[in-house]
Amino acid sequence: MRSQVVIIGSGPSGLLLGQLLAGAGVETVILDRVSKDYILGRVRAGVLEEGTVKLLEKVGAADRLHREGLPHDGFSLTFDGRAHRIDLFGLTGGSRVMVYGQTEVTHDLMDTREAAGLTTIYEAANVQPHDFDGANPYVTYEKDGVTHRIDCDFIAGCDGFHGVSRKSVPEGARKEFERVYPFGWLGILAEVPPVDHELIYANHPRGFALCSMRSNTRSRYYVQCPLDDKVEDWSDDRFWDEIRRRLPDEVASAMVTGPSFEKSIAPLRSFVTEPMRFGRLFLAGDAAHIVPPTGAKGLNLAASDVYYLSEALIEFYRDKSEAGLDGYSARALSRIWKAVRFSWWMTTMMHRFPDTGDFGQRIQEAELDYLVSSRAASTALAENYVGLPY
Amino acid sequence: MRSQVVIIGSGPSGLLLGQLLAGAGVETVILDRVSKDYILGRVRAGVLEEGTVKLLEKVGAADRLHREGLPHDGFSLTFDGRAHRIDLFGLTGGSRVMVYGQTEVTHDLMDTREAAGLTTIYEAANVQPHDFDGANPYVTYEKDGVTHRIDCDFIAGCDGFHGVSRKSVPEGARKEFERVYPFGWLGILAEVPPVDHELIYANHPRGFALCSMRSNTRSRYYVQCPLDDKVEDWSDDRFWDEIRRRLPDEVASAMVTGPSFEKSIAPLRSFVTEPMRFGRLFLAGDAAHIVPPTGAKGLNLAASDVYYLSEALIEFYRDKSEAGLDGYSARALSRIWKAVRFSWWMTTMMHRFPDTGDFGQRIQEAELDYLVSSRAASTALAENYVGLPY
Repeated sequence: MRSQVVIIGSGPSGLLLGQLLAGAGVETVILDRVSKDYILGRVRAGVLEEGTVKLLEKVGAADRLHREGLPHDGFSLTFDGRAHRIDLFGLTGGSRVMVYGQTEVTHDLMDTREAAGLTTIYEAANVQPHDFDGANPYVTYEKDGVTHRIDCDFIAGCDGFHGVSRKSVPEGARKEFERVYPFGWLGILAEVPPVDHELIYANHPRGFALCSMRSNTRSRYYVQCPLDDKVEDWSDDRFWDEIRRRLPDEVASAMVTGPSFEKSIAPLRSFVTEPMRFGRLFLAGDAAHIVPPTGAKGLNLAASDVYYLSEALIEFYRDKSEAGLDGYSARALSRIWKAVRFSWWMTTMMHRFPDTGDFGQRIQEAELDYLVSSRAASTALAENYVGLPY
Repeated sequence: MRSQVVIIGSGPSGLLLGQLLAGAGVETVILDRVSKDYILGRVRAGVLEEGTVKLLEKVGAADRLHREGLPHDGFSLTFDGRAHRIDLFGLTGGSRVMVYGQTEVTHDLMDTREAAGLTTIYEAANVQPHDFDGANPYVTYEKDGVTHRIDCDFIAGCDGFHGVSRKSVPEGARKEFERVYPFGWLGILAEVPPVDHELIYANHPRGFALCSMRSNTRSRYYVQCPLDDKVEDWSDDRFWDEIRRRLPDEVASAMVTGPSFEKSIAPLRSFVTEPMRFGRLFLAGDAAHIVPPTGAKGLNLAASDVYYLSEALIEFYRDKSEAGLDGYSARALSRIWKAVRFSWWMTTMMHRFPDTGDFGQRIQEAELDYLVSSRAASTALAENYVGLPY
């Protein structure tokens, strides 16, 4: 088989890239090691920047998003018993975010791809990119006991942090940057109405908490917890007691509780690989970088990566120019590092760290106090939250 | 002897407090353990916020400042071989800072106090505050072999970080917050014109550098250096070579060099004592807090402290109300911690830290990149630099 571009990974970044390329007549095959149902069973957050929404509109995958998604014009920060609203819409001159689950984004993109009759090969075992440092790369995989080969011009590694793409690059050819945070997020999903129509990020002496939602009837709540805590340690009752203690009284007393139907503990990590291009292999999204969920930048960074990459590939086929391909890594990394900085900063400001000390604790309090008292500082937060320009 | 208020320390905070109180008819005696000439021989930076300038105007000590001071409407940040101007005036809607040495401020305040015939006792040995936890405090000191006592209503501790005032408070009654930075500033004074008419703060792989000035003919330059470096290790030639390597070419090539007439290495520290009131003893300025020189907040925080304290004392004598005195510590600390945060942040962003690591280094670069590309972030920097409102 042959395709202009082979995309490894059928998550939102691979699917969005496929559709952006299809819109310009560039052919793609998508390979994924797991099944479609497995992918759609993964629980992922979803706060979409306007740039991400626009890309989904561009590829015709935004109809349901606009019907079912929840536009948010702001969110709240709580600390020291008080709540402060960050007016995203007012501070940024009219930008907002859209709450819509990443799983739904993936679903919509899969539907769009299927409707267009484009090829996705699920349950492709032992996917392996080859010869991407030369002019004739190809990808092999196994299916039903048979080894297949797809020759191509380019390989897009959209297969996430644990995927094969980044690992196929010799260690000496890439540099990795990492920060692991000394706590996790215990998250639950429950079929209860959210405590507020907007998100609430809470800084509290007992630790961070986040009140989020999937819909007007389904809530997604988190509390910071020690990394060695086990899900079994956390009964629903314990969770609800804990999150209410971390919220101002008027928020806690308004919270509707109920049985959780999903509960998990996730570690927090910042990770970046440089560069993002290795010959004819290009990394995008989680394959190249991970951010902590604070500020919800992961999916949105994947979207800006594949936007840059699609532009570069389309330019190559349309204009026979490699300028875009040559510039991809630097262009993507410039935006990535700003979002990594923002996620790191928001994580640092909102959580309790075991080694902060008294001075650091006061600095955190002064930062929050300054942040909500300064229009300039609130605007800087807001413009990062809604997404810096592409 | 008796006075309504005894002020310990004849630096800018004690002198400014004395004049603010004198303007409302509150009598003061100032004690200092050293001589007037000694105080005026200390080299100190001087970048004055508008609030500080207004207070000096209010007490009639700003005539020479307005003749000889250098108003600055901006400053530059340099990194990655580029220079970026922060337009303080434009970003803050018309605020600027005034470059005028702290020693000159002290001189002008001393002249003002002398002209008003108010008492300052220099070379007062073994100054000691007493009984400030009761209604009848007093201060003792020795002069010419005789022990003197001044009874008073209140004692103002304006005697700096090493002064007796803070140390007179039992350790259990105060809490101290501290951050010591793992480097120092090597500073020189030279009779050469400054390389630019505004300050230049440089972030460079070899370390931080600052191009400042005292006047249009006298430059004050600094480079970050290891804490265990000795002044003797740094010839003038070595200093000039080093600072030029840390600046963009167009700045370095414009630098006029010459023999230094002052050279010293200063450690960098953030330090805050809480509370700032202990019965009838009030701390102000460096006696209660120290900031690193990055951002030049030390003198300006002393000015806002004594403004708050003067208001509280004047309210007490005028209205027989202790409300202002009761609120002094919290009011002063709220502004202090924001400035401590700003100084810590600017220090962190502009210096190389031995333990930063690759991830932290990229975060620093991303922060600078974001800062100069965002009007909101530049405005937040500018509004802190010119001084948050009292």
